[in-house]
Amino acid sequence: MSAAVRVAPNAAKRATSLLRTIQFTHPPSCPCHSNPGYHNNSPPPTSLVARAKALSPSRHYATPSSADAKEYAFEMAASSIRFGPGVTKEVGMDFKNMGAKRVCVVTDKTVDKLAAMNQVREGLAREGINFEVYSDVHVEPKDYSIKDAIAWVRPYKPDAFLAVGGGSVIDTAKLMNLYNAYPDADFLDFVNAPLGKGLPIDKALTPLIAVPTTAGTGSETTGTAIFDLVSKRAKTGVAHRNLKPTLGICDPLNTSTMPASVKAASGLDVLCHSLESWTAIPYHERTPRPTNPILRPAYQGANPISDVFSFHALRRTVKYLPRSVRDPDDLEAQSEMLLAATLAGVGFGNAGVHLCHGMSYPISGQNPGYRHTGYENLPSPLIPHGVSVAVSAPAVFRFTAASNPERHLEAAEAFGVDVSNVKRESAGEVLAEALTRFLADLGDQPKGLRDLGFGAGDIEALVEGTIPQKRVLMLAPGLDADLEREKDQLRRLFEDAMTH
Amino acid sequence: MSAAVRVAPNAAKRATSLLRTIQFTHPPSCPCHSNPGYHNNSPPPTSLVARAKALSPSRHYATPSSADAKEYAFEMAASSIRFGPGVTKEVGMDFKNMGAKRVCVVTDKTVDKLAAMNQVREGLAREGINFEVYSDVHVEPKDYSIKDAIAWVRPYKPDAFLAVGGGSVIDTAKLMNLYNAYPDADFLDFVNAPLGKGLPIDKALTPLIAVPTTAGTGSETTGTAIFDLVSKRAKTGVAHRNLKPTLGICDPLNTSTMPASVKAASGLDVLCHSLESWTAIPYHERTPRPTNPILRPAYQGANPISDVFSFHALRRTVKYLPRSVRDPDDLEAQSEMLLAATLAGVGFGNAGVHLCHGMSYPISGQNPGYRHTGYENLPSPLIPHGVSVAVSAPAVFRFTAASNPERHLEAAEAFGVDVSNVKRESAGEVLAEALTRFLADLGDQPKGLRDLGFGAGDIEALVEGTIPQKRVLMLAPGLDADLEREKDQLRRLFEDAMTH
Repeated sequence: MSAAVRVAPNAAKRATSLLRTIQFTHPPSCPCHSNPGYHNNSPPPTSLVARAKALSPSRHYATPSSADAKEYAFEMAASSIRFGPGVTKEVGMDFKNMGAKRVCVVTDKTVDKLAAMNQVREGLAREGINFEVYSDVHVEPKDYSIKDAIAWVRPYKPDAFLAVGGGSVIDTAKLMNLYNAYPDADFLDFVNAPLGKGLPIDKALTPLIAVPTTAGTGSETTGTAIFDLVSKRAKTGVAHRNLKPTLGICDPLNTSTMPASVKAASGLDVLCHSLESWTAIPYHERTPRPTNPILRPAYQGANPISDVFSFHALRRTVKYLPRSVRDPDDLEAQSEMLLAATLAGVGFGNAGVHLCHGMSYPISGQNPGYRHTGYENLPSPLIPHGVSVAVSAPAVFRFTAASNPERHLEAAEAFGVDVSNVKRESAGEVLAEALTRFLADLGDQPKGLRDLGFGAGDIEALVEGTIPQKRVLMLAPGLDADLEREKDQLRRLFEDAMTH
Repeated sequence: MSAAVRVAPNAAKRATSLLRTIQFTHPPSCPCHSNPGYHNNSPPPTSLVARAKALSPSRHYATPSSADAKEYAFEMAASSIRFGPGVTKEVGMDFKNMGAKRVCVVTDKTVDKLAAMNQVREGLAREGINFEVYSDVHVEPKDYSIKDAIAWVRPYKPDAFLAVGGGSVIDTAKLMNLYNAYPDADFLDFVNAPLGKGLPIDKALTPLIAVPTTAGTGSETTGTAIFDLVSKRAKTGVAHRNLKPTLGICDPLNTSTMPASVKAASGLDVLCHSLESWTAIPYHERTPRPTNPILRPAYQGANPISDVFSFHALRRTVKYLPRSVRDPDDLEAQSEMLLAATLAGVGFGNAGVHLCHGMSYPISGQNPGYRHTGYENLPSPLIPHGVSVAVSAPAVFRFTAASNPERHLEAAEAFGVDVSNVKRESAGEVLAEALTRFLADLGDQPKGLRDLGFGAGDIEALVEGTIPQKRVLMLAPGLDADLEREKDQLRRLFEDAMTH
């Protein structure tokens, strides 16, 4: 009805012109707050495959002048989420409803023996759905383990995917789905630049339903899949919103059975997802402005919608993670942590993460031999992902606070700190202290990189291992655009992270 | 990695059993808080069309015993959202990216002349996309206007839809898309029970992009389409998550040009979307528990994710609506109100609305001749939707507060009321007062039904016009399941709404 009385062309023109003015003539950017031009050096994709023709650089990539323009919009996309104790049993009906006839079920050897997979098998059988189970997912997937999985699935020709497991399983399933849909693509085509070509996913993939069995990665809602590119000794992945699952089935019965040490490590991943996306550079400071919406990255910087998810997830994690670790029978806490993981997934899946994650990849990849409590029975030493992420958190937020003290103070408040008399200059210190205390209270956590076995002599390699994580580093507030100065900042960050 | 160390089958069993216990042996339901069995009388769908075979009642509808069981899960689905001043111009690239060749553009005669449609035409032409414009959308659509639109689109055979306008336009486009995909369906097949058959939408529809030109309905994110069923003198519609647009393009340049009166009316719709979804019965009090996930309604009751959206939208609306109405150049406020409308859309789109909306339909349908300020130039008297919704809000929340005083106090706090010394029993009164003050301060709002021209003699017809709104009434906390007692409650609500 509004349309019927829409008039006032003068007011319209005035408003439009004003909006354009505030949008496009930004105040000069503060170097502490943004990374102007940070990513300008990423090469435009070469036209290897047919689709690249349709997405030719001239049409889709910023010209030199527009590459300097900052982003002006954000996009929010998330998988549908179904949440409830026992919902796993509905999954057969979902595939029946969508008319799926050949479902590729992806899991790993351990999850394959758990109740979740029993529920899945029963649910699919009950609805008469044909399926094959791929249970060879590699924990912390490597490029070669992903390639094995892709080779396995191609002859099966599934019309739907189902992932049942933690982040490794869900991410592997996403990549099986992707490369199954692009049979002629080179493996590096969609991998994040600069390690891969970073091509956008320009068509809808086969439906993928994800059933998480950890409360951590939030991978059931995101368009991100992470793996180790072994030849480059780097963690990288594919990130595009078309990679996201169709539906995440979040069943607290599947996650409440995690051992306490896994709950803690997974929960620290959630904590950092929420804190990093909450403090990432705002989307309108990101460059270049994409010239086609398909090129707008999923990791686009903090925005008004991701903020709602990230901050909410932060508060829930602070409240419920300690309870969920301490008491396996505290089912409210178990359920709330699964919800927090999913909500943080929506937050960082649309805003991104930055330094804790960027620095974690060389930390876990260059593990000097640390075995985390509760993970001793593994064949080789392992720093759980959440632990490798959280170990540098006090140092990271001490560093990033200058870019946006208010947000860091709000985060400290979420940890229960009374910030009413805290000066803005102390925001980083106060948040770092709150984090240090939170980690200590959680128990069994390293008190810095030194506890993991790292020393001063390892810092250079850790810095070198962080540099390729451009996709997340570009979202780090306060990081310098100049490579040498950036390395210097990272050196100091790793030094500061040696002990909390 | 968690999977690799997952063990502890005993802990698992214990947790599972405990979770099941707390889930399935609820405390006896409080009649003030739930509507047990409210919807049990809805008939299962008859098998008119082919798909009904696949969805036979025996498989998908609750047996008598399971119909008594309450819901145990919730599902969250929303359109992707792109937000930014000027994003309308990207829409041609979106259709190009999805390979669309024939786009049906839906709008109305007024919007067709606005800048938004210029941007759309230019954007589509620039990418060489073929399109046809249907600009005959009826403001406050009727079943016959929808049917005209469906008849228009069928021979065109579009492979994508684009809606540019307010709720009337977006809702009409949704229904054109739906019935175009089901050429053999009867018009009432998908319409909400009990007026229609309420069949689920069991396949993916053609992509629909929605560009809202009002900050109100939030229709760009929801699976709901509302129209007047003229023969029954009732507002009804279709509600299913598969009806939701693929993408909502939210461009503050399109909404900042609304006249102040339209901004106020649209904003009051946002206010009630957020307040009603925030106070709706919780999802786990809804019956019956669906026996197939496709039958889980979009309007499922308040849940932990919709709560985040609804409360956030409420706070933003309280803060920015008065500013956006007062000052067309306050572009922050204009932009925030569009965002609030969209976020409230995600909230109520997954939780539902209740009494304000249920009662608004007969209020606007039985308008005694009221012409709202700013809408005087229309050919016939009209109570804008947002005004018809908000006019009963003080009475409604005075009534619903007993069901959940805490939530009503939190809502009052969002209006700036200091509730620290307010008793729980006064929650309704305090929120009603805050709403009354808010409406008065906004200006040009009726101070109750009497100002619209209604009198005591109209109440019976208003009650009778509310009763068919089962889909929303079932979510109203405190409403009696017994029809006669429910009518009595509605009578008192309309009486109380005569003057604030």
